[in-house]
Amino acid sequence: MGKTKFGPTVKTLVQLMHEAIGDALRDADLRAEDIQAFVVANFLGGPNNAQLHLNSVVAGLMPGLNLPSWRVEAACASGGVAMHQAILSLDAYDPILVVGVEHMSGVPGLEITRNIGMAGDVGLDQAAGLTFPANYAIVAQSHMQAYGTTTDDFDNVSHKNHRNARLNPKAHFHHKKVEMSDVQAGVTVAAPLRLFDCCPISDGAAAAIVSRSRTDGRSVRVLGSAVSSDVISLSQRAEKTTFAAARDAGARAYRQAGVSPGEIDLAEVHDCFTIAELVAMEDLGFAEPGRATARVRAGDTTLTGPLPINTGGGLKAGGHAIGATGVGQVYELVTQLRGEAGERQVARTGLGLSHNVGGVGGTCAVHIFGGER
Amino acid sequence: MGKTKFGPTVKTLVQLMHEAIGDALRDADLRAEDIQAFVVANFLGGPNNAQLHLNSVVAGLMPGLNLPSWRVEAACASGGVAMHQAILSLDAYDPILVVGVEHMSGVPGLEITRNIGMAGDVGLDQAAGLTFPANYAIVAQSHMQAYGTTTDDFDNVSHKNHRNARLNPKAHFHHKKVEMSDVQAGVTVAAPLRLFDCCPISDGAAAAIVSRSRTDGRSVRVLGSAVSSDVISLSQRAEKTTFAAARDAGARAYRQAGVSPGEIDLAEVHDCFTIAELVAMEDLGFAEPGRATARVRAGDTTLTGPLPINTGGGLKAGGHAIGATGVGQVYELVTQLRGEAGERQVARTGLGLSHNVGGVGGTCAVHIFGGER
Repeated sequence: MGKTKFGPTVKTLVQLMHEAIGDALRDADLRAEDIQAFVVANFLGGPNNAQLHLNSVVAGLMPGLNLPSWRVEAACASGGVAMHQAILSLDAYDPILVVGVEHMSGVPGLEITRNIGMAGDVGLDQAAGLTFPANYAIVAQSHMQAYGTTTDDFDNVSHKNHRNARLNPKAHFHHKKVEMSDVQAGVTVAAPLRLFDCCPISDGAAAAIVSRSRTDGRSVRVLGSAVSSDVISLSQRAEKTTFAAARDAGARAYRQAGVSPGEIDLAEVHDCFTIAELVAMEDLGFAEPGRATARVRAGDTTLTGPLPINTGGGLKAGGHAIGATGVGQVYELVTQLRGEAGERQVARTGLGLSHNVGGVGGTCAVHIFGGER
Repeated sequence: MGKTKFGPTVKTLVQLMHEAIGDALRDADLRAEDIQAFVVANFLGGPNNAQLHLNSVVAGLMPGLNLPSWRVEAACASGGVAMHQAILSLDAYDPILVVGVEHMSGVPGLEITRNIGMAGDVGLDQAAGLTFPANYAIVAQSHMQAYGTTTDDFDNVSHKNHRNARLNPKAHFHHKKVEMSDVQAGVTVAAPLRLFDCCPISDGAAAAIVSRSRTDGRSVRVLGSAVSSDVISLSQRAEKTTFAAARDAGARAYRQAGVSPGEIDLAEVHDCFTIAELVAMEDLGFAEPGRATARVRAGDTTLTGPLPINTGGGLKAGGHAIGATGVGQVYELVTQLRGEAGERQVARTGLGLSHNVGGVGGTCAVHIFGGER
């Protein structure tokens, strides 16, 4: 695995990918010549960076190898989907490199909001002005109405993730001490969501090498890998407090791994907004519908609780370099499962789960890692 | 298989996909509920249509199914790459639906040129003003200098493909009778390429269903499927008259199929510009370097020749709905191999090959179809 620091940078898409790929190759003790195929995960290379055809850009980092390669896009789930694809392709190519990347800083505010909005339906969502904070505000309002969830519950998620990010040098907000009073004082973005309910706009890259044949004592086993999708617009769905694609991908991954939600030791879930972490916990079976808040209040999801969630700070405080996010989640899990997470190391590292969502639940990728090396 | 007519239309991305998918399902005698996963191929949904996350858009056509799905992009090779991916994924999901789509008409000329340019390097190519006609003009000039190729050779390719399009009701230029004198009179776009050397800007969709378990008497066997990539910019390559990615993907596909170039009965090759058809013939081993022109002059690649190429009109006259093109090539081959090509039906239908290029050879997908049903 390799990962750059997430956060604003003057580095380009190519420089970010070069750094993450180089780190992953060194970590796996492989050379570029050993790789048999690669998958690039990226969301906004076209609208933000005027750069599509990113697999050919990456081929320029390995001239002469002529590897099978392509780019995968499924909005914010691009990274998780790329992992899934690489795993599916291991019969044909082994090892396979996955690299996720996004460069968003420097794009003017209105333009970046419009571009991110392309993860929603151009007619039903974009034409109605339904930005992603607004989408998740609807989810938050629905959850509050259905279950009595409060903004205090959101604040608990945000504060925890900011505390974790302080222990993760690669987190977007590693440098920023955030007190509960700061979280509570955040200006409203889309009611009830305030500033500290929302993940930042990050740049970054992450890379993974997936293999059956080239494993070693540092390899982590993939026990489950699943992707599911749903209609794109909240307006087309009856349920607004849960994502069917996440429930479905979770169920498939649990079935493949032969484990139940209660056996998971730690998880990276897609907290693009604080409400999304609560919904994820419920969709993945870590809590009954409406009951994730109680587990968060009890401290269950902190680094020392029975189910640490988003140990590196999550998207909220670790950063959301969109195409890189799903691969970055795996980086964090692998770091924890290897016992190499330093100050943020958790105690129980048997089974780790990653949950990566595109749009407002239009796509979800779930992976389960662990078991003997 | 299913395919819409290629060419300008007021239909939206979703309507085009709906039509092609419906046609493919009916053709395979399957219902949407039978499909286990799907892959969407698209190049410019973001820059042209403000619509990314297209897999979730397609999920809206099959509400409640929550299928594993994603979008693949590799510039103009997106469709061929999506076919490859679906084939690789058959152990996990069977059958798999592939749908390629593009909607480009209505985007102003300067903007569409800029957007298509995103298939080239943002620094090395785009910043230098190297549009795709200019890229292929360099290839054409190089080929002329190396081998004595003339604009007459280009005209032969264009005229043949326009003749074939007249026999294909789904071709962009089906309605247009193009005489050799028209071809010769085309205004210069990027010397030596003139208007009739260049493919049009098309809208359209094409769909395929790939399966091991759900085959019937109309199914066509996939004998080879390969993808290869190369550095993105011509400026980074020593060779400008041949594409290494095409040679490599061709070699892999021939090896898988256990056949040699001389055994191929018909081919769909990526003639985004007339020179590209000549280069493709040489890269695929249908002619020695510099000798494709002789085969075209001899009529070998016409419908009645020993190696019909681009029987439906190719990109040049059949149209280039970018994300759909690679799947549309397969549609044409399958139609021919089934003996259902009507007026343009060729005689020998044992082995068909498709060749789909991204950028100026940065990516290439090659497939070989045929054998007993």
